[in-house]
Amino acid sequence: MKQYLKHDAWKIIEEGFTPANNRISESVFSIGNGRMGQRATFEEQYSGDTHQGSYVAGVYYPDKTRVGWWKNGYPEYFAKVLNAPSWIDIDVSIEGEVLDLAKAKVENFKRELNMQNGLLTRTFIATLPSGKRIAVDAKRFCSMADGEVGAIRYAITPLNFSGNLSVVLPVDADVENKDANYDEKFWEEIYKSADIDRAIVIAETKKTKFHVCTGINFLTKENDKVKPVVAKSETRDKYAAITFNYDLKENITFSIEKYAVVLSSENHKKDLLVSAAEQKLRSIKTEGFDRLFDAHQNNWLKRWQGADITIEGDIAAQQGIRFNIFQLMQTYTGDDERLNIGPKGFTGEKYGGSTYWDTEAYCLPFYLGTTDEKVARNLLVYRYKHLQKAIENAAKLGFTNGAALYPMVTMNGEECHNEWEITFEEIHRNGAIAYGIYDYIRYTGEEKYLTQYGLEVLIGISRFWAQRVNWSADKKKYVMLGVTGPNEYENNVNNNWYTNLIAAWTLEYTQQAIDFVKIDDKAAYEKLVKKVSFNEKEETAKWSDIRTNMYLPEDSKRGLYLQQDGFLDKELLTVDKLRKEDRPLNQKWSWDRILRSCFIKQADVLQGIYFFEDRFSFDDLKRNFDFYEPMTVHESSLSPCVHVILASVLGYKEKAYEMYLRTSRLDLDDYNNDTEDGCHITSMAGTWMSVVKGFGGMRVRDGKLYFNPFIPDQWKSYSFKVEFRGRVILVNVSKASTDIKVISGDPLEIIVGEEKELA
Amino acid sequence: MKQYLKHDAWKIIEEGFTPANNRISESVFSIGNGRMGQRATFEEQYSGDTHQGSYVAGVYYPDKTRVGWWKNGYPEYFAKVLNAPSWIDIDVSIEGEVLDLAKAKVENFKRELNMQNGLLTRTFIATLPSGKRIAVDAKRFCSMADGEVGAIRYAITPLNFSGNLSVVLPVDADVENKDANYDEKFWEEIYKSADIDRAIVIAETKKTKFHVCTGINFLTKENDKVKPVVAKSETRDKYAAITFNYDLKENITFSIEKYAVVLSSENHKKDLLVSAAEQKLRSIKTEGFDRLFDAHQNNWLKRWQGADITIEGDIAAQQGIRFNIFQLMQTYTGDDERLNIGPKGFTGEKYGGSTYWDTEAYCLPFYLGTTDEKVARNLLVYRYKHLQKAIENAAKLGFTNGAALYPMVTMNGEECHNEWEITFEEIHRNGAIAYGIYDYIRYTGEEKYLTQYGLEVLIGISRFWAQRVNWSADKKKYVMLGVTGPNEYENNVNNNWYTNLIAAWTLEYTQQAIDFVKIDDKAAYEKLVKKVSFNEKEETAKWSDIRTNMYLPEDSKRGLYLQQDGFLDKELLTVDKLRKEDRPLNQKWSWDRILRSCFIKQADVLQGIYFFEDRFSFDDLKRNFDFYEPMTVHESSLSPCVHVILASVLGYKEKAYEMYLRTSRLDLDDYNNDTEDGCHITSMAGTWMSVVKGFGGMRVRDGKLYFNPFIPDQWKSYSFKVEFRGRVILVNVSKASTDIKVISGDPLEIIVGEEKELA
Repeated sequence: MKQYLKHDAWKIIEEGFTPANNRISESVFSIGNGRMGQRATFEEQYSGDTHQGSYVAGVYYPDKTRVGWWKNGYPEYFAKVLNAPSWIDIDVSIEGEVLDLAKAKVENFKRELNMQNGLLTRTFIATLPSGKRIAVDAKRFCSMADGEVGAIRYAITPLNFSGNLSVVLPVDADVENKDANYDEKFWEEIYKSADIDRAIVIAETKKTKFHVCTGINFLTKENDKVKPVVAKSETRDKYAAITFNYDLKENITFSIEKYAVVLSSENHKKDLLVSAAEQKLRSIKTEGFDRLFDAHQNNWLKRWQGADITIEGDIAAQQGIRFNIFQLMQTYTGDDERLNIGPKGFTGEKYGGSTYWDTEAYCLPFYLGTTDEKVARNLLVYRYKHLQKAIENAAKLGFTNGAALYPMVTMNGEECHNEWEITFEEIHRNGAIAYGIYDYIRYTGEEKYLTQYGLEVLIGISRFWAQRVNWSADKKKYVMLGVTGPNEYENNVNNNWYTNLIAAWTLEYTQQAIDFVKIDDKAAYEKLVKKVSFNEKEETAKWSDIRTNMYLPEDSKRGLYLQQDGFLDKELLTVDKLRKEDRPLNQKWSWDRILRSCFIKQADVLQGIYFFEDRFSFDDLKRNFDFYEPMTVHESSLSPCVHVILASVLGYKEKAYEMYLRTSRLDLDDYNNDTEDGCHITSMAGTWMSVVKGFGGMRVRDGKLYFNPFIPDQWKSYSFKVEFRGRVILVNVSKASTDIKVISGDPLEIIVGEEKELA
Repeated sequence: MKQYLKHDAWKIIEEGFTPANNRISESVFSIGNGRMGQRATFEEQYSGDTHQGSYVAGVYYPDKTRVGWWKNGYPEYFAKVLNAPSWIDIDVSIEGEVLDLAKAKVENFKRELNMQNGLLTRTFIATLPSGKRIAVDAKRFCSMADGEVGAIRYAITPLNFSGNLSVVLPVDADVENKDANYDEKFWEEIYKSADIDRAIVIAETKKTKFHVCTGINFLTKENDKVKPVVAKSETRDKYAAITFNYDLKENITFSIEKYAVVLSSENHKKDLLVSAAEQKLRSIKTEGFDRLFDAHQNNWLKRWQGADITIEGDIAAQQGIRFNIFQLMQTYTGDDERLNIGPKGFTGEKYGGSTYWDTEAYCLPFYLGTTDEKVARNLLVYRYKHLQKAIENAAKLGFTNGAALYPMVTMNGEECHNEWEITFEEIHRNGAIAYGIYDYIRYTGEEKYLTQYGLEVLIGISRFWAQRVNWSADKKKYVMLGVTGPNEYENNVNNNWYTNLIAAWTLEYTQQAIDFVKIDDKAAYEKLVKKVSFNEKEETAKWSDIRTNMYLPEDSKRGLYLQQDGFLDKELLTVDKLRKEDRPLNQKWSWDRILRSCFIKQADVLQGIYFFEDRFSFDDLKRNFDFYEPMTVHESSLSPCVHVILASVLGYKEKAYEMYLRTSRLDLDDYNNDTEDGCHITSMAGTWMSVVKGFGGMRVRDGKLYFNPFIPDQWKSYSFKVEFRGRVILVNVSKASTDIKVISGDPLEIIVGEEKELA
């Protein structure tokens, strides 16, 4: 844990330069626009500890898998987010001295990320070894208005001298992934060119053959007035640059505006990349930094309108929640159904793949609540487009007849992960994908989605469940053996309650979907039946048998749902009995010890109760929460939010707030000592849920919006906005009152507490 | 499966050269002497498919572990048997043409391994591209009389020409392991020298710093008469050689005798290696090939005296059983307690480490039955010497107070394996190590072993079990959660019956051992108590509580011991229902599918019944055998022998014979299509047990020897010898009669069937 960032309602601020924190700051101050982004590394050269990382959404590399012991069915490769060609570098030398903060005396250093408008600013005064002092003001953004555009304004003021400045403005595709399994580089050069006013490199990923075309041009100014320079060009392998010299005059500010375009073959024909890049480069240079920034800023302001959460009386919490929302919004903008929410977004490259069950279980509600319905819908369509791959994935594991098992981790629909206990057994992810469809329709009311895409996915998943269970002659029930539930601190267990529950629910929901689609669009239904060779009578009869005879382990004496068979054989301890030096368990205990202990990594039975809340009584919830919560170590960042939501229902205000604190500033305060690798993007959605569904008690039932807010004692007031069926609703909660109103769109019946009101 | 080797009672014979089989033959024809050995690669150069492999016992390299996902507690490295410097090469050129069987026309090729005297012979006629024909007769052995000595006689007869022969006799330390995790070479040169009559290289292993000194000299003969040649020397990195030329005369046989010594720093001071090697080289050259071979042969003949098994009426079975015995005897001679029985012996380098639970569970009975008691005793002392490492290993996993967990795979006492479900959970190995002590004492009567070494090991293991169980408030029994039993087609199960049984038994046997040692040598006991801080009263009270309240899963309705909790939830199928294309399961099914199926890789409940036979009734055995046997796929080579033994007890003669067939010619017929990697050494002991304990029904009870033989219908007669407490007993079984007699040593009461007789 490190708390060196200043508290501010809208800004992340680092004052003073501490090289030891540099990598953490590089993660936290990352900027992106859904299409591309990069860590907050310096424009000028830096020989200290840094992790240069630029990323382009959807561009990945299938790195050869590394395993100790191969198991049949493992994927051949692990799709990795790629460290992409960099456009941010501005190499600066003054009278032959390189500007390098590792070698200069640095004063007045300030790094600032304005979350309201997505502008990264860095200012400092550097004294070079020769004694020359310069002031630098560097501003950078990745345009939210045009995902292929970025810009930097880098202003240098010589404070105690006049002298020659030498500048190199490169596009550098000679980059590597820190997490490469076999120390390979993943890019090859396809094209490069540089002349006096632009430099372009097209790099191709090995194997996947993505082309990324990165181009830059520039403009120079003296005290804000355009001041042309005589430029040259320079190229080497995977590298093209413009270089120039300029005579700095004492106290006269010289600015370099570097404009960049990043175009990928995902969105352009490969042979048109260069001309498209050139055209766009011309146009953005004409537009200029300020107008580009205006468009960018306006886009951010609009996004905040539907998504902001305010907290009064707790500036750290205010900053924390906005940081979470900011990161989510710049990671995924939802206008491309081929993209998804990577676990590190554009802030680092740890963990491969981009898509986990986090998307459906945690992120979907955030995007549903904060932006246009289309955004969440695209997340569903993403899975629809991967259905064939999910069927192939299941076939690899021996399933037949169109049964679909979605991957645990994926980039393109194929499985990337390779631990058998997760890859093959953590199959509850399939349930979350079905639940995502349900959750989307519940929120938006767009049942039509079932007809267009949803039912086909549901049939694939239901077929999987039907084959994955087996009849236990002993229990006279259907059982599901050898699974790993959401609580990954158990592996290969039998009858994980959550998994069995969501499997049975999927079978039921699929039946409802069939019933709906048959009425909604008979022809579409018949087409689908044919397409997937659906034997409705036989298959649904089997499904019905399974869901009514599914075994769900219980301790009826205590009124508990059992996480899995045999849970009560464990030594039932509570987290408060653990020694401090044993935490976190996954760094201190061997795996077998973790497995046989009762300690729970993340909500499991409670995740099930959260998903299907309406099926359980208050007393059910209370008994199970009181039993499982004290055993839960929350060593997954995805866990606390569910506990906040359930504790809120139970009126456990202190517990809810305690859990909330665990997530809201996870990265800002480097809680787990790993922020330097990148931020925990998907769990940020959990923080949002903690406020909106937890403290705010938001629910949708039968097409109606419910709130049941309370306010943590530590806060004066808080407010949040949600988008719901064409409206924006503003919820204001203070100690004294709750105020809920529709601030945009038609009036809406809203149920607060359990009292209805028209807002 | 490949059946190209000729059947012969004492020899393994390959006739005709089939390059596609070469690697298999290299494994099968391997020779060794307990200290060193090598694959049956050619002396002359061979550019075809080959796997050059020489090995020196006890010399290993800790290769950096390769894992997909690191788990806390994994070992940093994986100890590998090293491919060692080679002394067998004889590079031959005739008039500038290299002799290379991949490039010559080969006739009359014959490779023959005489198992009676451990001589490898290869003869062939090669026609070189130029048309020159030569006959070659190459003989090679690794001396059983002196483990540091090897010799080759390589005779060349030019059949249709006279001409210049050029010969290079190298020591080559520039070798590599095929299974290196990161393609590194593991040897560095420390010393080399070559002159006209000897070449020596000392190579050092990286990290472990073992020195291996390999030296050679030679003698040349013309038609069996010494014929000196003018030699030169040649060296390069990690390589030293003697070279010479000789004028071949048509139809005159020219022989090269290459003598080799292989000395390791395990047995010599590093700085004395060169002088020791030089001295030994001089002495063996003086001795000469024939006398060295005589000493070697006599040693083999003596070994066979106590160990041979004859089978009449089935030459394939006869050859198979002798091959198994031959390999076991040349892999481990038992005169060095630092050595153990590697899974591939000197026949290949697959699987790292040298010691698995195979040693105690399968190999110990073989060495007890076929050779001096000291041999088996050294296997026990090996574990005693690793006790501190086993305690450290357990401490890594969170155990305290001197609890010992022996590694799953080891070379020097440290764990090498890195799959959590095996490394951390397949803890029944600890029980086998305790059982080994019991089994040794049962056979030899040497209870004193407990006082000297045994009890200390037993206390360490018992302490482990006592901490590994936990009290289940639900079952009101001690349970053992999260283990992998002998059947590795189940992982992380609760209450594996076998593991719980052997744990409870260990606690009981440790108590008996305490009682014995206290009386046997009070002072030694007290010394031990102090050494290991043994709180006898408290610890044994706890042990007693655990063993009397240990949970052993049963199905009382059916009278079955349940392999683990929940076994009856599985779909209970039998192996005969599996499709052929699904076998072997571990190559065809994904791991989760294997895990949730009922199919059993190797004896598990039945292993327990076999170990503790006297505690179970005939009916118990029958019910469990009838239940589990049909589910067992025997995809471990260690499985069938236990089934042979139990089927024999039950009178299931056909089943016993069927199971026997699965192991006896496993490598000779390349049953699993993997003999090219090396032979399955440890399972060969199971083949021996199948005959002696299975068909022969040998048991030791209360210090008395029992036999209860039957003869498979397919055989005319069979006989075997066993060593027992200073005697050699010969058992002859024919269709008509059983004849058992002591052929060496004092008379002995032997119980046959259940009738006593004095033999």
